[in-house]
Amino acid sequence: MSSLGAEIRDQFPILQQEVNGHPLVYLDSGASSQKPRSVIEAIKHYYEWDHSNVHRGVHTLGSRATDAYEGARDKVAAFLNARHREEIVFTRGTTTAINLVASGYARSVCGEGDEIVLTPMEHHSNLIPWQQVAKATGATLKYIPLQPNGTIDLADAEKTITDKTKIVAVMYVSNVLGVTNPVKDIAAIAHRHGAVMLVDGAQSTPHMKVDVQQLDCDFYAFSGHKMCGPTGIGALYGKKELLENMEPIEFGGEMIDRVDLYESTFKELPYKFEGGTPIIAGAVGLGAAIDFLTDIGMDRIHEHDTHLAKYAYERLSQIHGLTLYGPRDNRTGLVTFNLKDVHAHDVATVIDQEGIAIRAGHHCCQPLMRWFNVNATARASFYLYNTEDDIDRLVEALKHTEDFFNSIG
Amino acid sequence: MSSLGAEIRDQFPILQQEVNGHPLVYLDSGASSQKPRSVIEAIKHYYEWDHSNVHRGVHTLGSRATDAYEGARDKVAAFLNARHREEIVFTRGTTTAINLVASGYARSVCGEGDEIVLTPMEHHSNLIPWQQVAKATGATLKYIPLQPNGTIDLADAEKTITDKTKIVAVMYVSNVLGVTNPVKDIAAIAHRHGAVMLVDGAQSTPHMKVDVQQLDCDFYAFSGHKMCGPTGIGALYGKKELLENMEPIEFGGEMIDRVDLYESTFKELPYKFEGGTPIIAGAVGLGAAIDFLTDIGMDRIHEHDTHLAKYAYERLSQIHGLTLYGPRDNRTGLVTFNLKDVHAHDVATVIDQEGIAIRAGHHCCQPLMRWFNVNATARASFYLYNTEDDIDRLVEALKHTEDFFNSIG
Repeated sequence: MSSLGAEIRDQFPILQQEVNGHPLVYLDSGASSQKPRSVIEAIKHYYEWDHSNVHRGVHTLGSRATDAYEGARDKVAAFLNARHREEIVFTRGTTTAINLVASGYARSVCGEGDEIVLTPMEHHSNLIPWQQVAKATGATLKYIPLQPNGTIDLADAEKTITDKTKIVAVMYVSNVLGVTNPVKDIAAIAHRHGAVMLVDGAQSTPHMKVDVQQLDCDFYAFSGHKMCGPTGIGALYGKKELLENMEPIEFGGEMIDRVDLYESTFKELPYKFEGGTPIIAGAVGLGAAIDFLTDIGMDRIHEHDTHLAKYAYERLSQIHGLTLYGPRDNRTGLVTFNLKDVHAHDVATVIDQEGIAIRAGHHCCQPLMRWFNVNATARASFYLYNTEDDIDRLVEALKHTEDFFNSIG
Repeated sequence: MSSLGAEIRDQFPILQQEVNGHPLVYLDSGASSQKPRSVIEAIKHYYEWDHSNVHRGVHTLGSRATDAYEGARDKVAAFLNARHREEIVFTRGTTTAINLVASGYARSVCGEGDEIVLTPMEHHSNLIPWQQVAKATGATLKYIPLQPNGTIDLADAEKTITDKTKIVAVMYVSNVLGVTNPVKDIAAIAHRHGAVMLVDGAQSTPHMKVDVQQLDCDFYAFSGHKMCGPTGIGALYGKKELLENMEPIEFGGEMIDRVDLYESTFKELPYKFEGGTPIIAGAVGLGAAIDFLTDIGMDRIHEHDTHLAKYAYERLSQIHGLTLYGPRDNRTGLVTFNLKDVHAHDVATVIDQEGIAIRAGHHCCQPLMRWFNVNATARASFYLYNTEDDIDRLVEALKHTEDFFNSIG
């Protein structure tokens, strides 16, 4: 029993409301988390006191805005334990970060006969960019197969990654299975073959301590909005020597050194990847989210979220006619399931009438859905503000749903 | 004399502060505008009541967030008078929007011998993306020359644009000269030659009524943060038939239809260009900014901003040793100048001591600076919350600056 949810719930204004006449139970943090008051206030404060464009200003607000923006970069660097602050490039989110590596790095290193290695559980954001690289360069996509319970066996990674492999791109935590993939070990295999390792951190960064030096990954991508931060901000971590040799893919102000009519030179890291006016308030909000999470402690958050997933798995497995997907143990913050003979969308729609928000669909993982042999699943995902009570409410609602569909079926 | 500034100044919390012991005079809106309370509150309200991921949710918050996000798209479409809502693609800002056209459209239509036509006054964001297209495709960059006063003569546009021209990309309002370019006429010339016309609307959209159908431009790009909206959001308008045939350049969730392990198909407009979790709160804030501006009336704002520029030009031209750049008349919201023998950065730094915020530097227009034969200029830019008093404060401060440097010089 973790007390974290009850303790900090008050700090999330949105959770204090009723939905359809019931106190809101928000179990969709895997799609996007809610924001604590401190993050909302940080954005408000920024606009009310410090806003200006950054870097280019020599006036007081310009300096304050620049300090706020670059201070947020320092917070991200510390949060991921990056060696250098310039290894952090702010992006619109995980998707943009992965696309930056795919377009700016992979397209120049991959060619005919080269291989890009993924897993079948990847989110579309860590799948389609690589399909495009393969199409553009003639490289081949290869997949580390999944074990029957949805986990990765390192022996399979050993077999799939070869000297032809140029890039290995794997999600740290699955947004459907809840499993944590052995990305540190996979990175070691990739490096033995001279390949680089990208980790999709969209679902790991909110829930656990991440140390990019310890993982020894080459790139790490994540989004702010899934970890108490604002929408429209995220970051790419990249090892300095790789980023230095990587081409920018977006061109404009802020990222240039000298510009002539017919030719230009680019700035040093990280600015060459941040063309145009930056996402200033977004970075400020992300910095506030990192402060919020760090104050609580990522270990405590991980323990809480894992506990809730375990509790949910146990309670849901007692519901007759409910199928759970993925392994029983070591799930990070979510359960994925279907109720027999009821479409996942109908499940989500019906329990919304009791104020419970879950997600239904393919979760941007169509290949994984086909591996399950389903079109869609329901997913309940948990975060630091959730409680066992929330899960009890879910279980009751699912039982009502089953009764309802049995009665009309 | 326009009363707008005095009337609405109270609605901007940031303007109520003192900087270096003086009431803040913010004359840097050309770089980024300040935000009214209604925009800040719209973002806060969104996070406190409605936030969730969009499109994919079947629960109540998911529907509300989707309505808020798509409602913002409707507001942008109406604000620009686009024919169809799906002609509006949300982007991180102007830079991303122009890069999307350069990478997603121009690279596939341009080849050896083709021409891309620009002007020497373009912002780096509407210059470097085209240099990259030229480099990648073998197309040639051509520039419509400037008149001695910094304006464009249509006869020069006629001479520069030819049947080899594939793309013409011109800023509507110059961020340095303040001139409004005849983009409607240039678009007509471009179309006669079968070229498409992109308008960089970064500096026009905040200050005047824009009608993309009336301009008959093919693409129009702008940023929210320069028009009372949040940082990290903007939009690309594109004619439907062009966007339909244009390739996405960022790949991930939200923008796909069917995804297999080795191939995928993409969604219809505008979603195929909006991969990943959208900039939801950014769009909501931009929608609130559009409401705010529309309530005041774009014609009134234009009149106010033009009046202030005229007033500033007149007052500054009376300062001995001060050079003004660009034409005297019809400036939209800014004046650009240098004080004799004082570097623009020093001017900005010194007057910041009196609480006055102006910009100094190349304003992301290095080629234009070289055309002026200077390294940098100072720029005071005005928006709806500024007053004649603000300009009087600037003039006084510039006189002090001149005295100060004369006394030490």
